[in-house]
Amino acid sequence: MNRNILIINGPNLNLTGTRKPEIYGSTTLTQINERIARHASEKGLTCNFYQSNHEGAIIDKIHEARGVYAGVIINAGAYSHYSYAIRDAIEAVELPFIEVHLSNIFARDEFRSKSVLSAVCRGHISGFGADSYLLGVEALALVLDKQAAQKPQL
Amino acid sequence: MNRNILIINGPNLNLTGTRKPEIYGSTTLTQINERIARHASEKGLTCNFYQSNHEGAIIDKIHEARGVYAGVIINAGAYSHYSYAIRDAIEAVELPFIEVHLSNIFARDEFRSKSVLSAVCRGHISGFGADSYLLGVEALALVLDKQAAQKPQL
Amino acid sequence: MNRNILIINGPNLNLTGTRKPEIYGSTTLTQINERIARHASEKGLTCNFYQSNHEGAIIDKIHEARGVYAGVIINAGAYSHYSYAIRDAIEAVELPFIEVHLSNIFARDEFRSKSVLSAVCRGHISGFGADSYLLGVEALALVLDKQAAQKPQL
Amino acid sequence: MNRNILIINGPNLNLTGTRKPEIYGSTTLTQINERIARHASEKGLTCNFYQSNHEGAIIDKIHEARGVYAGVIINAGAYSHYSYAIRDAIEAVELPFIEVHLSNIFARDEFRSKSVLSAVCRGHISGFGADSYLLGVEALALVLDKQAAQKPQL
Amino acid sequence: MNRNILIINGPNLNLTGTRKPEIYGSTTLTQINERIARHASEKGLTCNFYQSNHEGAIIDKIHEARGVYAGVIINAGAYSHYSYAIRDAIEAVELPFIEVHLSNIFARDEFRSKSVLSAVCRGHISGFGADSYLLGVEALALVLDKQAAQKPQL
Amino acid sequence: MNRNILIINGPNLNLTGTRKPEIYGSTTLTQINERIARHASEKGLTCNFYQSNHEGAIIDKIHEARGVYAGVIINAGAYSHYSYAIRDAIEAVELPFIEVHLSNIFARDEFRSKSVLSAVCRGHISGFGADSYLLGVEALALVLDKQAAQKPQL
Amino acid sequence: MNRNILIINGPNLNLTGTRKPEIYGSTTLTQINERIARHASEKGLTCNFYQSNHEGAIIDKIHEARGVYAGVIINAGAYSHYSYAIRDAIEAVELPFIEVHLSNIFARDEFRSKSVLSAVCRGHISGFGADSYLLGVEALALVLDKQAAQKPQL
Amino acid sequence: MNRNILIINGPNLNLTGTRKPEIYGSTTLTQINERIARHASEKGLTCNFYQSNHEGAIIDKIHEARGVYAGVIINAGAYSHYSYAIRDAIEAVELPFIEVHLSNIFARDEFRSKSVLSAVCRGHISGFGADSYLLGVEALALVLDKQAAQKPQL
Amino acid sequence: MNRNILIINGPNLNLTGTRKPEIYGSTTLTQINERIARHASEKGLTCNFYQSNHEGAIIDKIHEARGVYAGVIINAGAYSHYSYAIRDAIEAVELPFIEVHLSNIFARDEFRSKSVLSAVCRGHISGFGADSYLLGVEALALVLDKQAAQKPQL
Amino acid sequence: MNRNILIINGPNLNLTGTRKPEIYGSTTLTQINERIARHASEKGLTCNFYQSNHEGAIIDKIHEARGVYAGVIINAGAYSHYSYAIRDAIEAVELPFIEVHLSNIFARDEFRSKSVLSAVCRGHISGFGADSYLLGVEALALVLDKQAAQKPQL
Amino acid sequence: MNRNILIINGPNLNLTGTRKPEIYGSTTLTQINERIARHASEKGLTCNFYQSNHEGAIIDKIHEARGVYAGVIINAGAYSHYSYAIRDAIEAVELPFIEVHLSNIFARDEFRSKSVLSAVCRGHISGFGADSYLLGVEALALVLDKQAAQKPQL
Amino acid sequence: MNRNILIINGPNLNLTGTRKPEIYGSTTLTQINERIARHASEKGLTCNFYQSNHEGAIIDKIHEARGVYAGVIINAGAYSHYSYAIRDAIEAVELPFIEVHLSNIFARDEFRSKSVLSAVCRGHISGFGADSYLLGVEALALVLDKQAAQKPQL
Repeated sequence: MNRNILIINGPNLNLTGTRKPEIYGSTTLTQINERIARHASEKGLTCNFYQSNHEGAIIDKIHEARGVYAGVIINAGAYSHYSYAIRDAIEAVELPFIEVHLSNIFARDEFRSKSVLSAVCRGHISGFGADSYLLGVEALALVLDKQAAQKPQL
Repeated sequence: MNRNILIINGPNLNLTGTRKPEIYGSTTLTQINERIARHASEKGLTCNFYQSNHEGAIIDKIHEARGVYAGVIINAGAYSHYSYAIRDAIEAVELPFIEVHLSNIFARDEFRSKSVLSAVCRGHISGFGADSYLLGVEALALVLDKQAAQKPQL
Repeated sequence: MNRNILIINGPNLNLTGTRKPEIYGSTTLTQINERIARHASEKGLTCNFYQSNHEGAIIDKIHEARGVYAGVIINAGAYSHYSYAIRDAIEAVELPFIEVHLSNIFARDEFRSKSVLSAVCRGHISGFGADSYLLGVEALALVLDKQAAQKPQL
Repeated sequence: MNRNILIINGPNLNLTGTRKPEIYGSTTLTQINERIARHASEKGLTCNFYQSNHEGAIIDKIHEARGVYAGVIINAGAYSHYSYAIRDAIEAVELPFIEVHLSNIFARDEFRSKSVLSAVCRGHISGFGADSYLLGVEALALVLDKQAAQKPQL
Repeated sequence: MNRNILIINGPNLNLTGTRKPEIYGSTTLTQINERIARHASEKGLTCNFYQSNHEGAIIDKIHEARGVYAGVIINAGAYSHYSYAIRDAIEAVELPFIEVHLSNIFARDEFRSKSVLSAVCRGHISGFGADSYLLGVEALALVLDKQAAQKPQL
Repeated sequence: MNRNILIINGPNLNLTGTRKPEIYGSTTLTQINERIARHASEKGLTCNFYQSNHEGAIIDKIHEARGVYAGVIINAGAYSHYSYAIRDAIEAVELPFIEVHLSNIFARDEFRSKSVLSAVCRGHISGFGADSYLLGVEALALVLDKQAAQKPQL
Repeated sequence: MNRNILIINGPNLNLTGTRKPEIYGSTTLTQINERIARHASEKGLTCNFYQSNHEGAIIDKIHEARGVYAGVIINAGAYSHYSYAIRDAIEAVELPFIEVHLSNIFARDEFRSKSVLSAVCRGHISGFGADSYLLGVEALALVLDKQAAQKPQL
Repeated sequence: MNRNILIINGPNLNLTGTRKPEIYGSTTLTQINERIARHASEKGLTCNFYQSNHEGAIIDKIHEARGVYAGVIINAGAYSHYSYAIRDAIEAVELPFIEVHLSNIFARDEFRSKSVLSAVCRGHISGFGADSYLLGVEALALVLDKQAAQKPQL
Repeated sequence: MNRNILIINGPNLNLTGTRKPEIYGSTTLTQINERIARHASEKGLTCNFYQSNHEGAIIDKIHEARGVYAGVIINAGAYSHYSYAIRDAIEAVELPFIEVHLSNIFARDEFRSKSVLSAVCRGHISGFGADSYLLGVEALALVLDKQAAQKPQL
Repeated sequence: MNRNILIINGPNLNLTGTRKPEIYGSTTLTQINERIARHASEKGLTCNFYQSNHEGAIIDKIHEARGVYAGVIINAGAYSHYSYAIRDAIEAVELPFIEVHLSNIFARDEFRSKSVLSAVCRGHISGFGADSYLLGVEALALVLDKQAAQKPQL
Repeated sequence: MNRNILIINGPNLNLTGTRKPEIYGSTTLTQINERIARHASEKGLTCNFYQSNHEGAIIDKIHEARGVYAGVIINAGAYSHYSYAIRDAIEAVELPFIEVHLSNIFARDEFRSKSVLSAVCRGHISGFGADSYLLGVEALALVLDKQAAQKPQL
Repeated sequence: MNRNILIINGPNLNLTGTRKPEIYGSTTLTQINERIARHASEKGLTCNFYQSNHEGAIIDKIHEARGVYAGVIINAGAYSHYSYAIRDAIEAVELPFIEVHLSNIFARDEFRSKSVLSAVCRGHISGFGADSYLLGVEALALVLDKQAAQKPQL
C-alpha cells in the first residue's frame, strides 16, 4: 500500500530558521524536514518535500500528487488566507490533506484568523511550532491506517 | 481583418474530464478545445489555446495578446474571485474579453458568486458546461462582426 | 418533441429602442423580437413573447409556462435584483430558464451587480446588447438538445 | 408650453385621512388633491392625479407620462425603499420628478430612512404632511420656469 | 359579533399540491382550504379565501378587509421577505393578522429567515406544513375571543 | 404509543405573572401550566414541566428527554438568542421540538429578532401570550399524530 | 406673533457663486440671501442670516436662536454628515428647523447620502439649487401658520 | 515533575457514541477516554477526565486545575463559539491548553467556524474524530517536554 | 427604609488577587469585599456578597434580590458581553443596578468594549480597579437617597 | 502636591437646567458646578470649570492643562462620539482623565453607545445625572491619592 | 510665477517635540518649520505656516489660500479621519494639496488607516516623521514645475 | 556603507507608457527607470530594477534582497490590494521598504483604496505619477542617512 506522503510549504517558509532567530529559533526548514522525515519513518511513511513562493507552482505540485502520494501535509503560509485556487486544487485531487501552521493563527492579526483552505482539508493543526508538522504526520498516519482498514488491500 | 482569437483557461481547468467524471463528464480539456476550434472555424475564427495555473503567466499571456489576437475568451477559474492583477491586465490591453464559466457560479458557495473580472469584460456567460465556451465563441464573433462593420476596413 | 420557447421581458424593457437612442440604439423591442424569432427558427424553435412591468403578471406567466413551453429566456430587468417571488416561481415550474441582460450588470451601479434569480436559472448571459437574447436562444437550444438526447423520445 | 403635471401616489396612500385620524388628521387624499389642484392653478399648472397600490401600474403610468406631462410629483410610499423597477422607469422617461413624503422618513424606522428613488429624482421634500405636496408643486413650478427660460420657446 | 375571517395566500402558493408532490404532498390549495374551512367552522368562524401573485392586489385586498373581516391569516410567500408595502397595509387596517408559513423559514436559505411582516402581525406560526393554517385559525379564534371578552358586546 | 410530552421554560420565565402584572397579566407560570395540562389532556397528551435559569441544566434535561418523551415544547427565553449549546442538544436527541415565545420576538429589540434554535426545531409559534403554549400543544399533537400514522404501531 | 426667522449656512457655503461658476452659477451667497429675504417678506417673515465654517460657532448661534427666532432654515454643509453636536443643539432649542441642501445629496458620494441632522429637523428639502432655500421659507411659513392656528394668540 | 493532565469535554459530548452511530461511530465517550488514557500512559502522562454541560461548572473545573495539572486538553463543544467566560478562565490559570474538536469546524455551519477560545490556547487540532484527542495528548506531551527542558528541574 | 445592598461578582472574579499579582495587585476578592463593606457602612448601607461562575446561579440570585435588597452592584465579568439572560433578569426585578468593571473595558479587546447589560443598569463605572466598587457604593447610595426623598416614608 | 483639577464640559451642556426642566431638572450648570466645587473641596481638591461648544477650544484647553492641573473630568457631550482630535489631545497631555456623562449613554440612540474617548481615559462613569460629576471627583481623588502614594513627595 | 506655498498643521501638532520626546524626538514644530523653510527655499519656494486645533479655522485658512498660494501641504491630524468639511474646502479652492502624516497611519489603530481627505488631494505621503514634510515640499515643487511647463507664462 | 537599492514593479507596470498614452503619457517604464537612476545617483545611491507579473517571483526577489540591498522601493500594482504573501516577505527580510503608487489610490475604485502592504512598509507615497518613484528615492535616502547616523560605521 502507498505510504509516500508529500509535505508542501508555501511562501516565505523557506526563510524559517534564518529569520528573527531569537523568536522563531534557529532551526532551518531543512532541519525541520529532517525531523519530519525521521518521525514519518517511524510511522512507516516516506516523506517528500516541496517548497515554493509561487501559488501556481503549488497548484501544479498538488495536481502531480494525484496517484503518486497517499496524502499531503500543507502549510500554505499567507496563501491560506486568500488562495481559492489552491483550495480548488486540493478539492480536485481527492487526497487527504492536513493543514498545519507553525503559529496559532487565531491569536495574531485579524486577517490571519481565517484560512480558506480549512474547509477542504481533513483536519487542522496549528500553534505548535515545528511540532505542528510532526503532529500532522501522526494525523496523516492515522488517516491512512483507517483507509487501509476499510479498503480491501490487494 | 484579424480573426485570431485566444482562449485562456486558468487554475485547475487542466484537470477537466479526469476529475469526478460522474459529475463533470469525461470530456477532457483537449476534447473541449477541439469542439471550440471546430465551432470557431464555422464562424471564420482561428483559435489558440492557453492554460496555466500561474496568475503571473496568465497576465503575461494577456499582455502578449495585444496586437496579436482580435479578442479573448477567458475562464480564470478561482482567480476570478480575487485577482485584481488579472483584472488590470484585461483592462490594459483593450481587447474584447468574454468571461465564461462551466458552472453557474451564482448557485454555489458564497465566495464564488462574485467575479472581480466581470466589470472589465464585455460580457459574461456561465452555467452551460463546455457549451459556455461555444457560446463565448458566438458572442465574440458577434462582437468582432460589429467592430468590423463600424471601422472602415483597409 | 416540444420546441416552443417563451421569452419574458420585465419592467421598462418595453421602452427599449425609444429611450436614449444615442446610447441603446434605435432598435425597438419589437425589432429585437423579430431577430430572436428568426434566429430561433433556424434552430428549430418557435418563440413566444411576453413583456410586463407587473411582478405578479410575470409570475402568472411563468406558472402558465409549465406544460406549454420547453424552456424560458428571461430578462427580468430591475426585478432581477430583489424579486424573490419571481425566483420562487422559476424554481417551482421546473423548466430550464436562461437569464439574460442587455448590459453587463457587473459594470454598473453596485445594486445591479447581484441578481437573486441567477441561482435558480440554468445559466447567465449578460453584456451583449440585443445579442444577449440570440445567445440565450443558442444556449436554450443546446440545453433542449441535451435533454432530448437523454430522454427516450416517444 | 406644456404646464400639465402628474401627481403619483403609491401604496396605502389611498387610506390617508381615514386611517388613525387622531394622528394623520382627517383630510382625505381627495381633499389633499383639491388643495394641490388649487395651489397648482395659482402657479399656472394643471394637475392630474393617479394612485395605485400596484408597482407595475405605477411603472406603466410613468411610461405614459412621457410626452404628456411636463413633470411628476411622486410619493411612492413603501415602494420608495426597494423598487429599483420604479427607479429605472423614472430614469428612463427623462422628465423632472420631485420625490415627496408626508412624514420625515429619516425620523422613523431604520428601513424607511433610505429611498432608492432619491438618486434619480430632481429633488426631495419630506416631513411637512400634506404640505409636502404643495411644496412639491412650488418646486416643480420653479424647475419648469427655469427650463422654459433656457429653451427657446417656439 | 363579526366572526368572518380572511385567509390570504401570496405568490406561488396557488401551485401547492401540484408542485414536487413527493416533497410537499399532493394536497392542493383547494383541499387545504377545505380543511381550514371545516376547522374554522368548529371554532364558529367563517372563512374567506384569497390568493394572488400580485403584491398590489394583496394590498388592495387587505384594505378591503377593514370593516368586513374580524381578522386575517396571511402567508405572503416570498413577499414576506421584502414587501414593506404589504407591511404598511397590515399596519394601516388595524386588524389582528396572523403570519403563517408552510415550512420552517429559519431552516432554509439565509434570505428566507427574515420576514418584514412579522413585526406588525400579532403572532407568527411556521414549520407545520398545511397544519400551520389550522394553528393560525386556532390562534385567531383565541385572539377574537379575548377581544370579545374585553369589549362590551352590543 | 408514547404520549408524554415535556414543556421546558428557560431563564426568567419563573417570574411570569408576578412581574409587571399590568402588562403581562397576573397569570403565574403555575397557572399557565395548569391550562397547558388541561389542554394537553384533551388531546390525549400527558404534560411534564421543567423550568430552569441554568443553560447547562436545560441541556441535561433535553438529554434525559430522549426515550422518555414523545416531543418537547421549549421557550428558552433569552438563551434562544445565543445558546448554540442548547441548539446542539436539541439536534442531538432527535425528538420533535416546538419553539414558543410569549411575545412577538420580531417586534421588540433587534437582538431578540433572531433565535439560534429555530433552525433545529420543527416549528415556531410566537406572539400569543400564554396561548402560544396551547398552540404549541396543538402543533405537537398534530406532529405526533402524523408520526403515528406513518409508523406501524406495535 | 414672532415672525423672525434665521437662515444658517455651514462650512464652505460662503464660497457659493465664486466657485466653479460654470457648474453652480455665478449667484453669490449674498445674492441668494437677497432672494430669500424678498421671498420671506412676501410671506410676512423677516430673515436673519448667519454663515460660519466653525461647528462650535454654529452651535452657539443655534443656542442664541431660542426665544429670538420663530424657526430656523439650516444648510449645515458637510457637518450634516457627522456633527452629532449640531444635532443635539437643534434638539435642545425646541424650534422648528428645516434642513435644506443645494444639491440632491442622494445622487452624489455615498458619504453624502446620510445626514445625521434629518431625524431632528421638521422636514428636509434638497436638490433645487438656491431654490431649496425659497422652498424652505415656504415650508417654514406653513409650519408657523399651523402653530399660530393651534395656539391661542394673546 | 508534574505529568498529570486534565481532559475537559463540554456540552453534548457525553452523548458521543450513542448519537447518530451511523455517522459518528459507536465509540462512546468512555471508550474514547480509555484510548486517551492508554495513549497518554505511553507518553508518561496520567489522565483525568471531566465532562459537563454547564458553562459555570467548566469554569470552576478550570480554576481547580491550577497547581494540580500540568496542562489541559479541552473540547468545549458549542461553548467554543461564544463563551468569553471560559476564555477568561483559560487565560487566568496560565496553564497550557490544547483546543480539540472531533469534526472539522471550518467545514460546517458558518457559526461553527469561529472559536473564541483559540486565541488563548496554545494550539488547535480539529477534524480527526476521536483521534483529535490522541493528537492533543501528543501535542501536550511535546509542550510539557519543552517546558521541562527549559526549567531547571529541582 | 431598606438599606441592604447586594454585590454580585461573575465568572473568574473569585481569582482576583491570586492571579497575575504583578498586574492586578495582591488584594483578594475577600479583601476588596472588606473595603466595600467598610465604605458602605459609612454611607449607612449593609453589604451582602455573592460570587459565582454560573450564569444561571447569578440569575437565580438576582431573582431572590427582589424585595430583599434596595439595590445591586454587579460586575458580571465576561457574561457582560453576551448574557441576554442576565440582562432580562436585571430588567425583570426592577431594582437599581450599578454596573462596575475593574478595568477600562473600552481600552482592551474589541469584544470587551460592548456590555449587553449597560442599557438596563442605572449607571456604568469602569476603569478604577477595586475602587470601581467603592464608587459603585457611592453611586448606589446617591440613587437610594433620591428615591427616599421622592417616596413618602411610612 | 498639585490638587487642582479641571472640569471640562462640551457642546450643549451650557443649556443644562434651562432645557426640558421636567426631564432634566432645573439645576443649571452653574449650580452643578457649585455642588462639584463643594464636594471637591471636601476631598482637598480645587476645581476649575470650562465649557465650550467649540471642539478646537476644548483641545486648546486640554493642552493648557498640562503642568497646571493634576487631572481632568471631561463630559465632551456629542463630541464623545466622533472627535478623534479630542482623543489625541487627551492622549498627548498624559494626565488622568475621567469621562463622565449625565445619562446612561448605552440606553439611548445607537450612535450614542460608543465613545471614542473611553479608550484613552482612566475610567468611565455614566448614568447618574449631575451625580456623575461628583462620582468623577471621587474617582479622580482616589487616582491622585494612589499616584501620591507611589511617587516620592519632595 | 507664484511660488508661495502654505503648510497647514491640524490639531495637536503644536505639541510636536514637547510630547513623549523619547518617542517622537525633541524637534519642535518650530524647528521642523525651519527645516521645511530651508528645504523649500532651495526649490525656489517661499513657505508660510499655519497651525490650529480648530476645524473651522483650518477651513477659513484654506479659503484664504485661493489666489494667494500656489499650493498647500496639509497634515490635518485627527481631522483627517472624519472632517468632510475640510475635504469640501480642499475641493472648493482648486489648488494642489499634498497630504502628509508624520507616522505611517496604516500601521496604527484601525480608525487611523482611513483619511477622508486623500481622495481630494493630489498625493499622499506618510510614515517618514518630519521628513514627510520635506518630501511634501519636493512633491509640490514637482507639481508646480509641471503646471508651469503646461501653462504659457505671461 | 551599502548604498544599493532595489526598485520592484509588480503586475502590468511593464505596460506603462505604451498603454493609453493620452492619459498616462508616453514615458515608458525604461524611461522612468532612467530618471530614477539619475536621481538616485545624485543622492549617492545605485539602483537596480526588477519587474514581474508573478507574485511568487516578487517574493523570491524580496528574499534575495536581504544582505544585498540597503532598501527597497516597491510598487506592487494590484497585488497591493490582496497579497498577504508579499506582505509577509516584506516583514521577513527586515529592510526599509517604501511603498509607491503612480496614481492616488484613494481617489479610484473602492477596492484600490486599501493596500495590505502599507502596514509593513516604512512609508507610503502615492499620486505623483512617475515622480512618486523619485520621491521614494528621496525618502529612502533620508531613511538610510538616519540609519547611518545611528549606527557606528566601521
